[in-house]
Amino acid sequence: MLKRSKLLLAAIALPLFASAQTVSSPNGNVVLKFSLTGNGVPTYEMTYKNRAVVKPSHLGLELAKDKHASKGKNETDLMDGFTTTSTQTSTFDETWKPVWGETKTIRNNYNELQVNLNQASSSRDIIIRFRVYDDGMGFRYEFPQQKELNYFIVKDEKTEFAMAGDHTAWWLPGDYDTQEQETQESRLSEIRSKFRDAVNWGNSSVAVFSETGVQTSLQMKTEDGLYINLHEAALVNYPAMHLNLNDRNMTFTSWLTPDATGNKAYVQTPFNTPWRTVIVSDDARDMLSSNLILNLNEPCKIEDTSWIHPTKYVGVWWEMITGHSAWNYTDDYPSVHLGKTDYAKAKPNGRHGANNENVRKYIDFAAEHGFDQVLVEGWNIGWEDWANMWKDKVFDFVTPYPDFDIKALNEYAHAKGVKLMMHHETSSSTINYERHLENAFNLMNKYGYDAVKTGYVGDIIPRGDFHNSQNTVNHYQYVVETAAKHRIMVNGHEAVRPTGLCRTWPNLVGNESARGGEYEAFGGSKPDHTVVLPFTRLQGGPMDYTPGIFVTKLSEWTDNKSWVRSTLVGQMALYLTMYSPLQMAADTPENYGKYMDAFQFIKDVPCDWDDSKYLEAEPGDYITVARNEKGTKSWFIGGKCDEKGHKSTIKLDFLDKDYVYDCTIYADGKNAHYEKNPQSYTITKKNLKKGDVLELTMAPGGGFAVSLHARWNGEDRAIGK
Amino acid sequence: MLKRSKLLLAAIALPLFASAQTVSSPNGNVVLKFSLTGNGVPTYEMTYKNRAVVKPSHLGLELAKDKHASKGKNETDLMDGFTTTSTQTSTFDETWKPVWGETKTIRNNYNELQVNLNQASSSRDIIIRFRVYDDGMGFRYEFPQQKELNYFIVKDEKTEFAMAGDHTAWWLPGDYDTQEQETQESRLSEIRSKFRDAVNWGNSSVAVFSETGVQTSLQMKTEDGLYINLHEAALVNYPAMHLNLNDRNMTFTSWLTPDATGNKAYVQTPFNTPWRTVIVSDDARDMLSSNLILNLNEPCKIEDTSWIHPTKYVGVWWEMITGHSAWNYTDDYPSVHLGKTDYAKAKPNGRHGANNENVRKYIDFAAEHGFDQVLVEGWNIGWEDWANMWKDKVFDFVTPYPDFDIKALNEYAHAKGVKLMMHHETSSSTINYERHLENAFNLMNKYGYDAVKTGYVGDIIPRGDFHNSQNTVNHYQYVVETAAKHRIMVNGHEAVRPTGLCRTWPNLVGNESARGGEYEAFGGSKPDHTVVLPFTRLQGGPMDYTPGIFVTKLSEWTDNKSWVRSTLVGQMALYLTMYSPLQMAADTPENYGKYMDAFQFIKDVPCDWDDSKYLEAEPGDYITVARNEKGTKSWFIGGKCDEKGHKSTIKLDFLDKDYVYDCTIYADGKNAHYEKNPQSYTITKKNLKKGDVLELTMAPGGGFAVSLHARWNGEDRAIGK
Repeated sequence: MLKRSKLLLAAIALPLFASAQTVSSPNGNVVLKFSLTGNGVPTYEMTYKNRAVVKPSHLGLELAKDKHASKGKNETDLMDGFTTTSTQTSTFDETWKPVWGETKTIRNNYNELQVNLNQASSSRDIIIRFRVYDDGMGFRYEFPQQKELNYFIVKDEKTEFAMAGDHTAWWLPGDYDTQEQETQESRLSEIRSKFRDAVNWGNSSVAVFSETGVQTSLQMKTEDGLYINLHEAALVNYPAMHLNLNDRNMTFTSWLTPDATGNKAYVQTPFNTPWRTVIVSDDARDMLSSNLILNLNEPCKIEDTSWIHPTKYVGVWWEMITGHSAWNYTDDYPSVHLGKTDYAKAKPNGRHGANNENVRKYIDFAAEHGFDQVLVEGWNIGWEDWANMWKDKVFDFVTPYPDFDIKALNEYAHAKGVKLMMHHETSSSTINYERHLENAFNLMNKYGYDAVKTGYVGDIIPRGDFHNSQNTVNHYQYVVETAAKHRIMVNGHEAVRPTGLCRTWPNLVGNESARGGEYEAFGGSKPDHTVVLPFTRLQGGPMDYTPGIFVTKLSEWTDNKSWVRSTLVGQMALYLTMYSPLQMAADTPENYGKYMDAFQFIKDVPCDWDDSKYLEAEPGDYITVARNEKGTKSWFIGGKCDEKGHKSTIKLDFLDKDYVYDCTIYADGKNAHYEKNPQSYTITKKNLKKGDVLELTMAPGGGFAVSLHARWNGEDRAIGK
Repeated sequence: MLKRSKLLLAAIALPLFASAQTVSSPNGNVVLKFSLTGNGVPTYEMTYKNRAVVKPSHLGLELAKDKHASKGKNETDLMDGFTTTSTQTSTFDETWKPVWGETKTIRNNYNELQVNLNQASSSRDIIIRFRVYDDGMGFRYEFPQQKELNYFIVKDEKTEFAMAGDHTAWWLPGDYDTQEQETQESRLSEIRSKFRDAVNWGNSSVAVFSETGVQTSLQMKTEDGLYINLHEAALVNYPAMHLNLNDRNMTFTSWLTPDATGNKAYVQTPFNTPWRTVIVSDDARDMLSSNLILNLNEPCKIEDTSWIHPTKYVGVWWEMITGHSAWNYTDDYPSVHLGKTDYAKAKPNGRHGANNENVRKYIDFAAEHGFDQVLVEGWNIGWEDWANMWKDKVFDFVTPYPDFDIKALNEYAHAKGVKLMMHHETSSSTINYERHLENAFNLMNKYGYDAVKTGYVGDIIPRGDFHNSQNTVNHYQYVVETAAKHRIMVNGHEAVRPTGLCRTWPNLVGNESARGGEYEAFGGSKPDHTVVLPFTRLQGGPMDYTPGIFVTKLSEWTDNKSWVRSTLVGQMALYLTMYSPLQMAADTPENYGKYMDAFQFIKDVPCDWDDSKYLEAEPGDYITVARNEKGTKSWFIGGKCDEKGHKSTIKLDFLDKDYVYDCTIYADGKNAHYEKNPQSYTITKKNLKKGDVLELTMAPGGGFAVSLHARWNGEDRAIGK
C-alpha cells in the first residue's frame, strides 16, 4: 500500500556557530526558523508567505522530580541550558496509497530540520525535529536512549505557540475527558470571558483546567485572512495535548492531560513525542484538503488490509437516542450483577430496541437499499444500570438479552448479504473491557462481525484517570491493535480525539470524539456546527457523525422535543462534507420511507473516493466539496452552510471531457429553513459536461447534494454506477 | 470436599423493644452484645470468660457525597439514626474437609446474631451479622439491594475496636502498599513514639497514613494474659483494612486503603463487607490452632480440586537474592523494549542464574532428593530494567532468555518426575499482567507447569493506586480465578495480606505478603520474627516464607555481608512451625551438600497433614507444634524460639499406642547460637512410644525438628513412611 514514488534524503551538517537554522517548505511559502535564545532555550518561529504564523516561541519540558525516573541528573528540566551540537536538513518526497481516504494517493513532501541539542549540566542529548510542508509544519521532541536519560516523568510539556494577533478562533473548552461541547467562535481575547458559558453550553465539560484552556484541533483566522490550525499527530503512548492561552500576549502553551497522580507522561527512551502541528494557508480550502497530519503518522502497520473496507450502515440506534425505544431489556432490576442477574426471569419492558423482530426489520431495510451493515446497540445484558454509577463490571460483551438471538440474526443478515455491526459500550471501565476483550472479539469472529463501535461514556475506571491521559490513550491503542489481530474494524466513540493514527492502523475506520449527530436529540447543536467540524475535529481523522436525519423535528414521532438544526437536504450534504469511510444513515426505516425520493441520494452516495476537490470553504460558514467515487468516473458534490445560507457557483471543470454526466441535484426548496421549513426540497435531473456551471442556493441551515453519473460521450453506455 | 456433619439453623425473631441483644459462643466463653446507643448508633461489645475483650464500640460507614452514587438520599452516612427492625439468632455446626491444611477436617461451629437495622431518614435497611465462636467472633456489614441503596461509595468505614487496656501489641506500621516491615513489640501507648523508627526499620514503608496506624492481623496480649487478635476474613471486592489507634482511649478505628481518588470502596448492592474478626483466648496455643478466619470464608468454589496439591520445591532463587547470580541476562541494555530489544545480539553477563545448565543442576537435585518442583526466576526477558521505574510494559511472561530452553528444560524435568514452577514478576503493572495473563497461562499449560509464583514489586500501575486497594484486591482475585480455569496454583508475593480466601480458592496455595526469608539476605530479620508471624500474618493463610537456609552467613559463599538470625536447626523447625502447603528448600544444592545429614529432615518432612497439635506457644518467644503426616501414622514435631532460647518438655501423648516410632531428633548443639555458632547441631535416633517425654533445648535463635515414623508395635513392618 505504501508506494514511494520519489525519495530524496540529504544530510547536511551545519556549522555549529550558526546562531539560527532556517528551513523552508518545498514551495518556499512556509519558513521555519530555529534558534537558541537567552540561556540556551530552544526557540522557533514560523512564517507563511512572509507573514508571521508563530512568533518566537519556546520549547521544552519540565520533569517530575520522582524516585521512579533514572538515577543521576534526572532533576534537571529540559527547558534551557542547551547548546546545538549539530543540525541536519533533508528532503522527503513520497506518494503513498491510503487503504481508504479522500484521495487515491497522498503526497508526503517536506523539508526537514533535525536539531541535535546537548544540555551540558545534565549530560543529556535531545533532538527537535521539524518537518516543513507547503501547508504547514510539524515538530516533535525526540529522546535517544542514553546513560542519563532512560526513564523520566513529564511534569509539563512547555511548548509555546505565540500567535501574532488576536485571531478569531473556533474553540472548545480544554477538558481532560470530553470534546463533545459546542464550538465557540470568538477572538482569542474573548475566550476567558466566554469560558464558563462554553463549559455550560449543551453537554457540560467535566474536567476543565483553566479559564483559557482550549482543545486541539484549534482553528483560527487572522485579521488579514490567514487560516491557522494547531493540533497534534501520532498520539501514541503520551497524553493528549491541550493549549493554555496567555491572553496578554496571545501565546498558547501546551497543557498535557494528567493521570490520577497529576503526572503527565511516563517516558522510556528512545521515545518521540507526538508531532505538534501548525497547518496554515491563506485559502480556507487548503485547511480541508491538507494531509499534513496523516503524513506525520507512520505508514500502515497492518500487512494484509484486504479485510478493511469502507462501510455504509443503518442501525438500531436513533430510535434509542431519541427515547423511542430502549437499550435495556427490563425495568425490573435497579442494578445488574453479571453472571448472577437472571434475565430469563425478568419481565421485558416492551421498549427494548434490539429485539429479534426489530433487528430483522433493519436487516430487511439494509438489504433492500444496499447498506453493508446494521449496527445494533443494546443487544447485550447490562444496560439496566450501565451509566453514571462508575460501575466496574458493567458488561461482559458476550451475553445477549433473551430477545436477541445472535446466531439466528447473523445468519439472517448474512443470507441477505448484510452484516451486523457489533457494539461494545464500556462505560469507561477500561479494566473490565480489557478483561473481556479477547472473548468479545472471538464472539465477533465466530458470528461474522467485522466491525465494532466502542463507547466510553462516563468516568474512567481505573478511577481517577481521564479519557485523554497517557494510560487511556494506550488502552484505545491496545484495543485497535488487538482488533487488527482479529480482523476487526473499530469505530471508537468518546475516545480521545484522533490524530491521524488511521494511517498506521487503518482498521480504526472512525471515531466520534466530538459532538455528534446524537446531540440533535439532546437539545440540538448550532446550525454552523457541521461547517466547523471539518476544520477542527476532522483534521485528525474521520468522524462517525451519524448524519441523515430526515425527520428533523423529533416530536413528529417521539416524545422528544429536540430538533435538528439542519434542513433535510443539509443532512444529505454531510455525506460529502464530513468525510468518513464509515457513514451511517441514522434515521429509522419508517422515517426514510416518508422521503424515498431524497433517500435515493443516501443510497447512491459512496464512502470511498479516488479524488476530492474542496470548491468553497469558510470555517463556520460553508463548505462545498466534489468527490470522485472510487474506481468510477462518477462524481458527487455536497455543500453545507450555517444559519446564514449560501449561494454557490460550481464550475464543473473537474469532470472528464470524454463523458457526459447524468446529474441529479438535491436542493433546499425555495423557502426552506432549518427551523421553519426544514423538509422542503427539490430534485432536479439534467445532463451536464465538463465546464458547465451549477448555480445552487443553500437555505439557512441547509445545503445541497449532487450526483453525477458518467456516460461515454456520444454512446449510450453507462460507466460506473 | 464440603462435608456437613451437622447443621442446625434456628431463626428467632426477638421482640423489637429489646434494648440489647446478646449472643454467646457454643461453650459460652465468648459473649457478644449488640445495642443501639445515643442517636441510634450501632454498638457492640465482647467478653471472654467475663473479661472485656472489646469495650462498647461503634459501627458505621461514612459515604462519599458523589455524583456516581444512587440518586435520592445517598448523602446520608450510615453512622447513626438507626432503629432495630428485627433480630435473628441461629446456630451453625458443620465439619468440612479442606483440600489441604493443618488438619484433615475443620469444624465450623458458631452462634449467629443477625441485626436488621433501618435508618428512617434515608429509608435504608442494613444488616450487621455477628458469628460468635468459642475462640472469638466475626461480624460484617450487609447491604441488601433496595430502592435507596443500589450504589454507594465508602468514604470511610468507622468500625471501632475499643481495647480494655494498654495491651502489648505485635504490630506493623499501617501501609497501603506493603507489609514487609519488621514487627514491633510494644504497648499500645508506645506505638506513636516508635512509629517513625518502625517505618524506617529495614524495609521502609512506602504509604503510611497515621502515626498510630497499624496493620492487621494485629496480635495483642493483655496484662492479665488474654491473647487478642484483630484481622479480617474474606477480603473480596473491598480494600484491605488497617487500624488507626486513638491512644488516649486505646480504641482502634478501621482505616481502609483508598484508591487514587481517595475514595475507599465502590459498592453495588447486594453486598457484604469482609468479616472483621476478633480471635481471643487465655491460651496462646489457641491463637495458632484457630480456624475462625477460614471458617468465615465461603466454601470451596472449585469443583474438581484433584489438580491442587501440596508442593515441596527448590529453586533458582536464593543465589539471585543473595547476589551470587542475576535475574538479568545481559548488562548491555540500560532499558528494554519488549518486542524490540534483540537479546540474540546481547552479550550475556555471565551471571544469569536461569541458564540451561544451572536449571538442569537444580532439576537433578530435586529429582535426587524427592522435591516436586523447581522454581526458576529470571527465565523471561525484561529483567534488565524491571524495578523501580514504574515501567508499564515490563514483561510479556512468555519469552524466555536465549539461554533458557523452556521446552527442553520442562521435558528434562518431566522425564525425572519433576515439574518446573513458573514465575511471573509483574513489577506491579497489573494492567500489563492482565493483558498477557491468558497467553501466559496458556504457555504454562502447554509446557506442563501447574504452579506460578507471582510478584508485585514496586508501585502499582494504574499509577496512583495501591497494593491494598479495592481495585488491586480485585486484580489478585481475577488472577486466582483465571488461574483456576487453567488448573494453575498461585503463590502471590507482595500481594495483599491473605484473609482465608484459600478456603474458597484452594489453588491460592500461598502468599508472601510479609517479611519473608529473603530479608535474611537484605540485612536480616530479628530472631523472634518467625515466632511472631504465625500469630499475625499466618492467621489469613499460608506464607511462602522460603525457609531452610543452612549456610546462614552469606559471606561464606557470596559477597553478601548479611546473615540469617537463626541456627541451622532453627531453619529446619520452620517447616513445621510455619504451616504451608507450599514449602521451599531455599538454600542452594551446594550448600545443602555440606549438611546432607541435616538435609535429610527437609527431604523427609511433608507439607500436608491430617492433624496438628500446638504444644507450646508465646508470641515472639517460642512455638512448638506436632503434626501428623497426611494418610500415615508418622508425626513431625518442630520447635522454634527467639533470641532467648527455650527448653521444651514434650509429652508424646498424641502418638498411637499401637505403634512404636523410629524417632530422629535434630537439635541445636550445646553451644549453638544464631550468631556465634549457628551450624552446631546434633542428630539423635531413638525409639519412642505414646506417653514418652522429650526434653529438648532450643539455642538462642534456634529450635528443633523431630521425625517420628510409626512401626507396628511388636512387628517389624513399617507403616507409612
